[in-house]
Amino acid sequence: MEALVIHAPHDLRVEPQERPPVGPDQVLVRVRCGGICGSDLHYYQHGGFGTIRLQQPMVLGHEVAGRIAAVGEGVAGLSVGTRVAVNPSRPCGLCRFCQKGLQNHCLDMRYFGSAMRMPHVQGAFRQELVIEASQAHVLADTVSDAEGAMAEPLAVALHAVNRAGPLLGRRVLVTGCGPIGAMAIIAARRAGAGFIAATDVVAHPLRKAAQVGADEVIHVAEDPAALARHAVDKGQFDVLLECSGNAQAMRSGFDVLRPRGALVQLGLSGSEATLPFNMVVAKEFDLRGAFRFHEEFATAVALINGSLVDLKPLISATLPYRDAGRAFALAADRTQAMKVLLDFE
Amino acid sequence: MEALVIHAPHDLRVEPQERPPVGPDQVLVRVRCGGICGSDLHYYQHGGFGTIRLQQPMVLGHEVAGRIAAVGEGVAGLSVGTRVAVNPSRPCGLCRFCQKGLQNHCLDMRYFGSAMRMPHVQGAFRQELVIEASQAHVLADTVSDAEGAMAEPLAVALHAVNRAGPLLGRRVLVTGCGPIGAMAIIAARRAGAGFIAATDVVAHPLRKAAQVGADEVIHVAEDPAALARHAVDKGQFDVLLECSGNAQAMRSGFDVLRPRGALVQLGLSGSEATLPFNMVVAKEFDLRGAFRFHEEFATAVALINGSLVDLKPLISATLPYRDAGRAFALAADRTQAMKVLLDFE
Amino acid sequence: MEALVIHAPHDLRVEPQERPPVGPDQVLVRVRCGGICGSDLHYYQHGGFGTIRLQQPMVLGHEVAGRIAAVGEGVAGLSVGTRVAVNPSRPCGLCRFCQKGLQNHCLDMRYFGSAMRMPHVQGAFRQELVIEASQAHVLADTVSDAEGAMAEPLAVALHAVNRAGPLLGRRVLVTGCGPIGAMAIIAARRAGAGFIAATDVVAHPLRKAAQVGADEVIHVAEDPAALARHAVDKGQFDVLLECSGNAQAMRSGFDVLRPRGALVQLGLSGSEATLPFNMVVAKEFDLRGAFRFHEEFATAVALINGSLVDLKPLISATLPYRDAGRAFALAADRTQAMKVLLDFE
Amino acid sequence: MEALVIHAPHDLRVEPQERPPVGPDQVLVRVRCGGICGSDLHYYQHGGFGTIRLQQPMVLGHEVAGRIAAVGEGVAGLSVGTRVAVNPSRPCGLCRFCQKGLQNHCLDMRYFGSAMRMPHVQGAFRQELVIEASQAHVLADTVSDAEGAMAEPLAVALHAVNRAGPLLGRRVLVTGCGPIGAMAIIAARRAGAGFIAATDVVAHPLRKAAQVGADEVIHVAEDPAALARHAVDKGQFDVLLECSGNAQAMRSGFDVLRPRGALVQLGLSGSEATLPFNMVVAKEFDLRGAFRFHEEFATAVALINGSLVDLKPLISATLPYRDAGRAFALAADRTQAMKVLLDFE
Repeated sequence: MEALVIHAPHDLRVEPQERPPVGPDQVLVRVRCGGICGSDLHYYQHGGFGTIRLQQPMVLGHEVAGRIAAVGEGVAGLSVGTRVAVNPSRPCGLCRFCQKGLQNHCLDMRYFGSAMRMPHVQGAFRQELVIEASQAHVLADTVSDAEGAMAEPLAVALHAVNRAGPLLGRRVLVTGCGPIGAMAIIAARRAGAGFIAATDVVAHPLRKAAQVGADEVIHVAEDPAALARHAVDKGQFDVLLECSGNAQAMRSGFDVLRPRGALVQLGLSGSEATLPFNMVVAKEFDLRGAFRFHEEFATAVALINGSLVDLKPLISATLPYRDAGRAFALAADRTQAMKVLLDFE
Repeated sequence: MEALVIHAPHDLRVEPQERPPVGPDQVLVRVRCGGICGSDLHYYQHGGFGTIRLQQPMVLGHEVAGRIAAVGEGVAGLSVGTRVAVNPSRPCGLCRFCQKGLQNHCLDMRYFGSAMRMPHVQGAFRQELVIEASQAHVLADTVSDAEGAMAEPLAVALHAVNRAGPLLGRRVLVTGCGPIGAMAIIAARRAGAGFIAATDVVAHPLRKAAQVGADEVIHVAEDPAALARHAVDKGQFDVLLECSGNAQAMRSGFDVLRPRGALVQLGLSGSEATLPFNMVVAKEFDLRGAFRFHEEFATAVALINGSLVDLKPLISATLPYRDAGRAFALAADRTQAMKVLLDFE
Repeated sequence: MEALVIHAPHDLRVEPQERPPVGPDQVLVRVRCGGICGSDLHYYQHGGFGTIRLQQPMVLGHEVAGRIAAVGEGVAGLSVGTRVAVNPSRPCGLCRFCQKGLQNHCLDMRYFGSAMRMPHVQGAFRQELVIEASQAHVLADTVSDAEGAMAEPLAVALHAVNRAGPLLGRRVLVTGCGPIGAMAIIAARRAGAGFIAATDVVAHPLRKAAQVGADEVIHVAEDPAALARHAVDKGQFDVLLECSGNAQAMRSGFDVLRPRGALVQLGLSGSEATLPFNMVVAKEFDLRGAFRFHEEFATAVALINGSLVDLKPLISATLPYRDAGRAFALAADRTQAMKVLLDFE
Repeated sequence: MEALVIHAPHDLRVEPQERPPVGPDQVLVRVRCGGICGSDLHYYQHGGFGTIRLQQPMVLGHEVAGRIAAVGEGVAGLSVGTRVAVNPSRPCGLCRFCQKGLQNHCLDMRYFGSAMRMPHVQGAFRQELVIEASQAHVLADTVSDAEGAMAEPLAVALHAVNRAGPLLGRRVLVTGCGPIGAMAIIAARRAGAGFIAATDVVAHPLRKAAQVGADEVIHVAEDPAALARHAVDKGQFDVLLECSGNAQAMRSGFDVLRPRGALVQLGLSGSEATLPFNMVVAKEFDLRGAFRFHEEFATAVALINGSLVDLKPLISATLPYRDAGRAFALAADRTQAMKVLLDFE
């Protein structure tokens, strides 16, 4: 059994791994498909992001789907052969945040493929993976492995939409149309947004944004006036889903977001952001961070299973895991790729 | 110009009416299509409902769409020939509820075709109608007059969904599948509900409920056990949209709604309801009344214009206004009709 | 060691009990003071309430404070001699409600002195009591045992106030001024209510209501017009805390609660309530059940410790536990008693 | 009749003014007392703040109380001699924000003594002032003019507390203990905060903070570790009321505010703020601007009238208006002054 292990920036190796034993309440998953996330790219390109840095070799990956290959003692409702999406999040369940329903802020979180704690939590880009049964979410027959692997980023977008409050009929701006931005468009539309505009500085993601449902796409580098038109009467958007992590995007959003509008920040930035905070005061914005997800993973799988969202337009390519270098290069190229997936079979 | 005037139960007359003058900020609408609502039926069958009774002849109707035939001084953005849906609600804008954004509770509300105040506010089932320009909402070319006339009941359903709080991924039960119940299903799905069940005691509305998106339809008279299956673990529904006005429906909902679930009551009942209130305490339900709408009218038109909802399956028939008696009889027959419309041309 | 065991209505016995062993993470409390609650009275007078009936002998009581007499393995921050209020609630921590922060709806709740499950959970009216360390909340030196024993009913009132939403500057009506109603007044005032009116049909609790902070007290049997004066302009109260469990009180509240007002129902009633539900719809009330508490127990102790509430005016009498019969009779007499406490030393 | 007119930085003149006529629905107020606000100081010291600059002479002041001297046609409930606090805010009532209940974001706001629009809205530091009757709030006999003049800054603090959400039992940090910070402490305590800590870099305001109810005061320049102790387990404060406008204060708050905590920003800063925005994302803060107030002015007067807050400890001095220069100098001296008032009689 093999896994993709990052040792240092640009040093990503295919390495054999021991299969861990399957304990009670656990299942063994034969991984079929794994999506490359922005954080995987950061580990690959820079060895981490912000204060989170690789300190030991780590299996990458946390967006995977596969087929159950073995079932531990006491597991109900899952059997060998069942196709599942894997929830990479494993909160402790006992700390004060878990007991408040804020499991994504668990004081003892284990999240696949994350260097946040030491020793790092090894990731899911591996051919075989042991998980808690509660991390396995059954996929419908109509859903592909690739779509299943995208339940995780969709859950991130759904969580951001939940943080934004009710969207039914609301006017929504999405800044940054990478995979998360595109899924934010899909999630906002599913939640009933009445009008969705999307901005980016690259043409390809804007085309994808339009394809998945944005009513207006704005190339802010080529046509800066298009966004400014929404600034009339203190701003025409009710909600801003900021997916770029770029201070300039946030700032331009301040002009077009109406007083008491909600700005949900999903995008992480490499550095500090300098912002005109007096506008936050004077327009009484609600700035809300959105980080990962909890119950939204189950929601994501339910929406995918029920054909209530369509993620297929976001699949740019699926490459064998042994071509990981090529796959990571493609995933990093915003002029042609949205979600790039690895095939582990 | 003619109108449909109710004089007493079952005494609905086609009568000539003077066209009122078009004042500043007003427009004249040539009405094309009008939907028969449950309250119209109550006036027709019983002369009113609850404490609200006809005390003088009144033009019925408040769900209409048409074409602008004249434009008053100072009106911008509307011109002769423009097709519009008419918002029948005219709050005063100045009272303490209007100034809180609770215009549907206006202390001086004027609502077309309502006997709530004396003299009654005359209705919109008439060939020509003068309205404030702010009551006119432009319809897209792709939208039929009948769909435009359904903006009003859709606004009622959207308001109820807004009262329910965020529905993204939630499990929703709709009790009572008449036109409002069916629109509640459509609105809940648009707002992202993950699973929708619907109950009724008649087969035809349940078929329509399934057609517009309910995942499970339950004939509670023929298969009472089907609903009870959702009672496990203190109840499996997050939200109940009660559209029947029937105490028995509310009560059965108490068993399947989870603790802290929201029960939005839209349906009006003819009498008082006797309920096991200790369950409201012990399960800490949030029971919320939903009455008419305010900003949801604009949302309804935007969703219809944007093809984000499909109301066409709910149109049972369109009859000439001179056949009003036949139209009202059909509208009252739950075994074959959902929304029945009148053609005023 | 002795306890107060209810065998049948009016058959309350002082009986010797074995002291259970103190396990890890547990402490032994020498109980000093216990308050008689309405549910204790119901068991004593009627053998239960609603569908909850005594099926085996049960130690009563769930409002107690005492002194730690022994400390189990692994307990930190508590030592022998520490005075504590005892939280009678022990949710499982693992079920879907606990994991949402809704521990008061735990699927496997153990609550002292409750016949809700079989075998019943034995109560705290006993000289020695073993509890989980997490159930012990340290009392300040300035706080009496009696005040400590009242942390539980105060937590109930705080929970109801939390269910009501922000009260700062709001106009609040409290219907029913027994111990819970009086504590609701105290809690609402602490939360910033701007005006508090209270109703009852007995003079003594109304005097107490005024003493603990109600701005207006209304004897609805003697002066029914006083409440009706608040009905102007669709109702002058923002929030109704219904503590009587009486349908008539709820109903009179409907007239004076403004549209979109919140009605929090704490009081349990003996039977079903018949209500004009159309008013709930037309005035769009938010009716919310309030049941027990969770984090509010810690809040109650913090407010008592910090002298931010004063419960002393509610103490009517403290009697030896061997005089339980007399104490229960006094507690049941609304013309002279608010909270009656038992002394277990 | 005289007024205090600012012409340029440090050029504040006592000048005679014409008394404007009293129109229908208006009253003439003989001003007795006016509080010097931070924005008055900014006009005096710097000619404005941020992008808002003096472009013409302007009467300063917006925190005043006085006695009614004449009553216009149609005014009910007010008579000559009545003592009132003056609400300096006059929203249009008709724009889309007013109609949503967001009057503080009115598109056509007139606010006494503000250079935000041109021509500027003249202020209330004048012996006689004509206002709309709805701007007059009657003071109780027990309340001094100085306390009445402080209704306005209290309303600002109450609005911030309303923006923070329910505070009952919550742990609150107030950064910056000038007059607004001190009133935020008072407002948070009134709203039920369980524990309040306050920080500043000057000793005098910290002493005042303790005097009005802060449980812990921290001199962050002298004892930086004291605040850091609250950082354990991802942060111990539920709410941060940021009253300093200082980026460093906000930043230090990020460390001690728990995940999903609310940070309400009241303080305006002179420049842009540079912040570690990734913490906002990872800890999912709710950052909310708070700007002025609307219904909180009435709440402020009600709380003052009902002795539910005590503002007297914040009064540093009352000087004759002809000594305005001395008064402004004192008001700017944080080592000895909180609120400095002008006497206009």
